[in-house]
Amino acid sequence: MIKTDILIIGAGPTGLFTVFEAGLLKLKTHLIDALPQPGGQCSEIYPKKPIYDIPGFPEILAGQLVDNLMEQIKPFNPGFTLGERAETIEKLEDDTFLVTTNKGTQHNAPVIAIAGGLGSFEPRKPPIPNIQDFEDKGVAYIIRDPEVYRDKRVVIAGGGDSALDWTIFLADVASEVTLVHRRNEFRGALDSVEQVGELSKLGKVNLITEAEVKELEGGDHLTAVGIKHKTKGDIRLETDYFIPLFGLSPKLGPMANWGLEIEKNAIKVDNSYDYQTNIPGIYAIGDVNTYKGKLKLILSGFHEAAIMCQSAYQRIHPDKKYVMKYTTVGGVEGFDGTKKEAKKEVVKAII
Amino acid sequence: MIKTDILIIGAGPTGLFTVFEAGLLKLKTHLIDALPQPGGQCSEIYPKKPIYDIPGFPEILAGQLVDNLMEQIKPFNPGFTLGERAETIEKLEDDTFLVTTNKGTQHNAPVIAIAGGLGSFEPRKPPIPNIQDFEDKGVAYIIRDPEVYRDKRVVIAGGGDSALDWTIFLADVASEVTLVHRRNEFRGALDSVEQVGELSKLGKVNLITEAEVKELEGGDHLTAVGIKHKTKGDIRLETDYFIPLFGLSPKLGPMANWGLEIEKNAIKVDNSYDYQTNIPGIYAIGDVNTYKGKLKLILSGFHEAAIMCQSAYQRIHPDKKYVMKYTTVGGVEGFDGTKKEAKKEVVKAII
Ligand SMILES: Cc1cc2nc3c(=O)[nH]c(=O)nc-3n(C[C@H](O)[C@H](O)[C@H](O)COP(=O)(O)OP(=O)(O)OC[C@H]3O[C@@H](n4cnc5c(N)ncnc54)[C@H](O)[C@@H]3O)c2cc1C
Ligand SMILES: Cc1cc2nc3c(=O)[nH]c(=O)nc-3n(C[C@H](O)[C@H](O)[C@H](O)COP(=O)(O)OP(=O)(O)OC[C@H]3O[C@@H](n4cnc5c(N)ncnc54)[C@H](O)[C@@H]3O)c2cc1C
Repeated sequence: MIKTDILIIGAGPTGLFTVFEAGLLKLKTHLIDALPQPGGQCSEIYPKKPIYDIPGFPEILAGQLVDNLMEQIKPFNPGFTLGERAETIEKLEDDTFLVTTNKGTQHNAPVIAIAGGLGSFEPRKPPIPNIQDFEDKGVAYIIRDPEVYRDKRVVIAGGGDSALDWTIFLADVASEVTLVHRRNEFRGALDSVEQVGELSKLGKVNLITEAEVKELEGGDHLTAVGIKHKTKGDIRLETDYFIPLFGLSPKLGPMANWGLEIEKNAIKVDNSYDYQTNIPGIYAIGDVNTYKGKLKLILSGFHEAAIMCQSAYQRIHPDKKYVMKYTTVGGVEGFDGTKKEAKKEVVKAII
Repeated sequence: MIKTDILIIGAGPTGLFTVFEAGLLKLKTHLIDALPQPGGQCSEIYPKKPIYDIPGFPEILAGQLVDNLMEQIKPFNPGFTLGERAETIEKLEDDTFLVTTNKGTQHNAPVIAIAGGLGSFEPRKPPIPNIQDFEDKGVAYIIRDPEVYRDKRVVIAGGGDSALDWTIFLADVASEVTLVHRRNEFRGALDSVEQVGELSKLGKVNLITEAEVKELEGGDHLTAVGIKHKTKGDIRLETDYFIPLFGLSPKLGPMANWGLEIEKNAIKVDNSYDYQTNIPGIYAIGDVNTYKGKLKLILSGFHEAAIMCQSAYQRIHPDKKYVMKYTTVGGVEGFDGTKKEAKKEVVKAII
């Protein structure tokens, strides 16, 4: 069982910065995220795009912002449970919470900070009746380890950046790559579109457009897909893997059943004080919460995290009074033994 | 008369970022600050010190943060009235406000954003009975243009960084520089303390410690100061200028008399919605406001500014509905004709 002071559900920018604010208060943190990497929407949806409204950055790539946050929180050694979805929550007799993931990992903490954004990202699945039978048996919605596909036959479906990028990447790894797309047009970086065009010309990628995978065949493992072409009729293609990349869509998911007050598909919180939910000890910050005037912006989560951690501190240390010190004045003392601080002034006589 | 959409009182980090958030909503802004430069506490008190808790910056010098904010808001061409203190406010018949500074400059806007921090910075004056008679006649508390002191005799008083730094600087400009300090010890950057020591040894600076300036002499202009030494008795020193540098202390000042609800020397606002004060159309954001759970941190002002601008937009355009667009998606369109935007995806066929 993983134990910590503040268990953070969601490792987007809000969850990450919570580690920092908690750390300044000497509170330990652990993050759970359904995605295999930290950064939330910034990493998953638009890592290479610029954001212009992060205060102090006239321009910063979303992925760079996440890297910076990871660097900023490093001194506080946060724990990570990645690639797992927080599924259930239970209040224990000692007033702490037990959070269990879909893979059974258990986490225990006196304070929960839900920083779940728009929810946990779940792949959009194509409507093929028996697709579930082949999940982990030839069908994958996310590519975690490309080596799995070395010297195998792979069919990718989709028309966006991830379908294009993985097609290019796997062209060098797999023995055969087929890209199937419903339309003739792709929507992605100009570079990627052109590169797939090149590979197709060179015969390194088998491109089938205006077509959809409609059937899956196999026993213990996938052996072939059935493709419906708009004009050319049905095509049967032998393959080892089928990877539909139709994007991820966030789902509030399990948290909707945790007894929290939900409004507009988000968790209602008390913004007149500490962003606590209707369940004492459970806070909701960042995109996942709602209140009058809420702005679903990155800078909102940062401020909400700072305020929330003060309240969490009081909950965890009811008898202590926290005296705020500016980081400039008090420095940052990491749990890893590092200490950052401003050069001290000297008090010195001139003789 | 200066007219704008949102008149911002205080050009600290909060006031500056307000320009950006207003600009995204196509609202024009103008800032008033008592100090001669923008940046508030960051520029005036600790420009060369690192801040560690600005989200996304593991470390940034306070002065650099201000430079970055100035760069970020540049597309929105804010106006500045610097070196003047907002003194009075009046509500006009058309429901807009008229703000007049201590120098008589008039500003008119439908929305006022008070981002006055701890108040306007006023110099700490030494307790010399007739000091006011010599203000602007040989006595100065802030050095605006060092050329004024070229080839003149100058007496500086103080034991901190600004007394040390100006002593060093003026040693090359003035014909004679005397530094008077109450104690034997100075409190400042090691470098500066040592440099003043060097200059004193070389006879380029006349150092008088354990002493205080107690008297001022002169007619139309200062001609001499009377110094009381702890052990050596009284010293009379002929001089053209006396510059006491005992720091600036912020005073809520005139704003305390504007009919705003004040609590703990700050302006009370509605944090459950839009950071409006008890006077509709007047908002207070950043260090200057107070509410339950308030954190006087730079990141708080950023979030408060973003929320406040949304409400200001509704006040200015009661009939329009603002549809928020992420900067990543909509880009940033400056009032100066510039446009920043993310590289667009292409929608393109592969033939
Ligand atoms: C294209 C695009 C452009 C944008 N541009 C801007 C912009 O210019 N400026 C701006 O301020 N904002 C912008 N945003 C919005 C910004 O990305 C979000 O406000 C921000 O990501 C919210 O951060 P968060 O940490 O609250 O949530 P998220 O980034 O959504 O992260 C939440 C994380 O929680 C995880 N999670 C949720 N539920 C569970 C669960 N049960 N178990 C485990 N993990 C879970 C999710 O997998 C996710 O990783 C943009 C968004 C998009 C999509
Ligand atoms: C030594 C030190 C270290 C700090 N370290 C940190 C840190 O690590 N992290 C952090 O988040 N914060 C830190 N702070 C606090 C931070 O500087 C403030 O929170 C921040 O400056 C507040 O910004 P602001 O724009 O609201 O107000 P301010 O920066 O105070 O700016 C307000 C401006 O309004 C002007 N003004 C006020 N009244 C009037 C008037 N009537 N007319 C004209 N002008 C007026 C003032 O002259 C001033 O320039 C520190 C502060 C100090 C002093």
